[in-house]
Amino acid sequence: MYTFETKLRVRYAETDQMKYLYYGNYAQYFEVGRVELMRSLGLSYKELEENHKVMMPVIYMQQRFLRPALYDDVLTIETSVRVLEENSLTFHSEIFNDTQKLLNSGHVRLCFIDMNSGKRIAMPKHLYEKLHPFFIQN
Amino acid sequence: MYTFETKLRVRYAETDQMKYLYYGNYAQYFEVGRVELMRSLGLSYKELEENHKVMMPVIYMQQRFLRPALYDDVLTIETSVRVLEENSLTFHSEIFNDTQKLLNSGHVRLCFIDMNSGKRIAMPKHLYEKLHPFFIQN
Amino acid sequence: MYTFETKLRVRYAETDQMKYLYYGNYAQYFEVGRVELMRSLGLSYKELEENHKVMMPVIYMQQRFLRPALYDDVLTIETSVRVLEENSLTFHSEIFNDTQKLLNSGHVRLCFIDMNSGKRIAMPKHLYEKLHPFFIQN
Amino acid sequence: MYTFETKLRVRYAETDQMKYLYYGNYAQYFEVGRVELMRSLGLSYKELEENHKVMMPVIYMQQRFLRPALYDDVLTIETSVRVLEENSLTFHSEIFNDTQKLLNSGHVRLCFIDMNSGKRIAMPKHLYEKLHPFFIQN
Repeated sequence: MYTFETKLRVRYAETDQMKYLYYGNYAQYFEVGRVELMRSLGLSYKELEENHKVMMPVIYMQQRFLRPALYDDVLTIETSVRVLEENSLTFHSEIFNDTQKLLNSGHVRLCFIDMNSGKRIAMPKHLYEKLHPFFIQN
Repeated sequence: MYTFETKLRVRYAETDQMKYLYYGNYAQYFEVGRVELMRSLGLSYKELEENHKVMMPVIYMQQRFLRPALYDDVLTIETSVRVLEENSLTFHSEIFNDTQKLLNSGHVRLCFIDMNSGKRIAMPKHLYEKLHPFFIQN
Repeated sequence: MYTFETKLRVRYAETDQMKYLYYGNYAQYFEVGRVELMRSLGLSYKELEENHKVMMPVIYMQQRFLRPALYDDVLTIETSVRVLEENSLTFHSEIFNDTQKLLNSGHVRLCFIDMNSGKRIAMPKHLYEKLHPFFIQN
Repeated sequence: MYTFETKLRVRYAETDQMKYLYYGNYAQYFEVGRVELMRSLGLSYKELEENHKVMMPVIYMQQRFLRPALYDDVLTIETSVRVLEENSLTFHSEIFNDTQKLLNSGHVRLCFIDMNSGKRIAMPKHLYEKLHPFFIQN
């Protein structure tokens, strides 16, 4: 298991007239969480596309909305990879407000597409090797 | 069961550099689908907030992304209520492109909040009565 | 001069906690307005990119916000090309609510980029020819 | 004159299929720039709404788009108040990429609305007093 924390402040643009962070915008927070988790391991999603010609579209998402996130809240996004799979990568996210209340909990599964062929492939080796040390069982 | 179809065209703003409709934007399409389903029954979500002081935040969402939606595609959003619950309302959505391929499938559960007290309440009666005829069992 | 009207309904996602259509979202309405103006002339922006390998980024935008657009309002976007230029294309947009009140007025200038070279070019001929008849002076 | 700098990283969600930061999304960056400028002076926009019952809708926006902002770029938003007005507040924004190239330049004018009456008012005194010292002429 590997876990990483990121912080983001809720923008006015992201609220709706209920005064909540609009439910569709959590997907962006999940995105930032997983990209920063990757960066913390020395992995750049941008380079994955540019240099390795591999892109990672989302194939599944699930979220529970427990409490509203409000304008100007500084949220903590705790993102983790819990299992190492070969053909996809699943990120679990938990979002907390600044009083440590859990607001949102969910996970997103992404696959790997070779941008030249358009075909689905296995997890690129350099990515697998960075993640592998965190999943060695005793 | 009650089903309603709406059509929406993908905006340039909604694409990402993968040339896909960004995965977080489907939540907006689901929103339009359920609001139009309600309107088709003579129910206005706007009036629910303004006149009945009831709002409906999302408490759960789940989506599978099967094929990408692309810029300028005219998508068909098929939204349905499959079960009549008392304390929440669940909308199932299936999104098809113009060659009838299923792109996205998911569901969203919303609850009812009394805007004066901030407390969760049961489904307002006028809403229940509009939906009820579609769920009478033989 | 050439003018075209499109209608769009304000989504919940597009409001902010002020209960207004968020000011940044008008840019999307302008986009829909100009793309539908082009379509009304038999011009597809999608095909411009796909077949002609020309894309049209925005180089200038100006907007006045006169009255708020509200959730569920059906807005009329009146888009017009007032002058035929050779190296850019300027769209003027006026947005009205359903009581014909002017909410927003602005314009956007776009240029033409050859997607292969990345260089700025003049307006593609097929586009110029479609627009030209509306600008013949007596 | 008072100037403040903020940094923001471009999200995948904010790109479009041209691989540019979508032109409508700069409005959010401008928003973050002006809110952080206010915070740097000890002013909270959130409290302005909550405690002072004053909100600040945008009444004018103008932007030039000089070079594209790209995915994962860390942008510097330089926001400044150049003139102290009594009935509105104008923020100038310049956005630079990490090689100090100017990408976008514009300004936004906001007014002050008393949330109880819905009427436009002058700049609240506590806000005026925080800004005033930066505009004393010799």
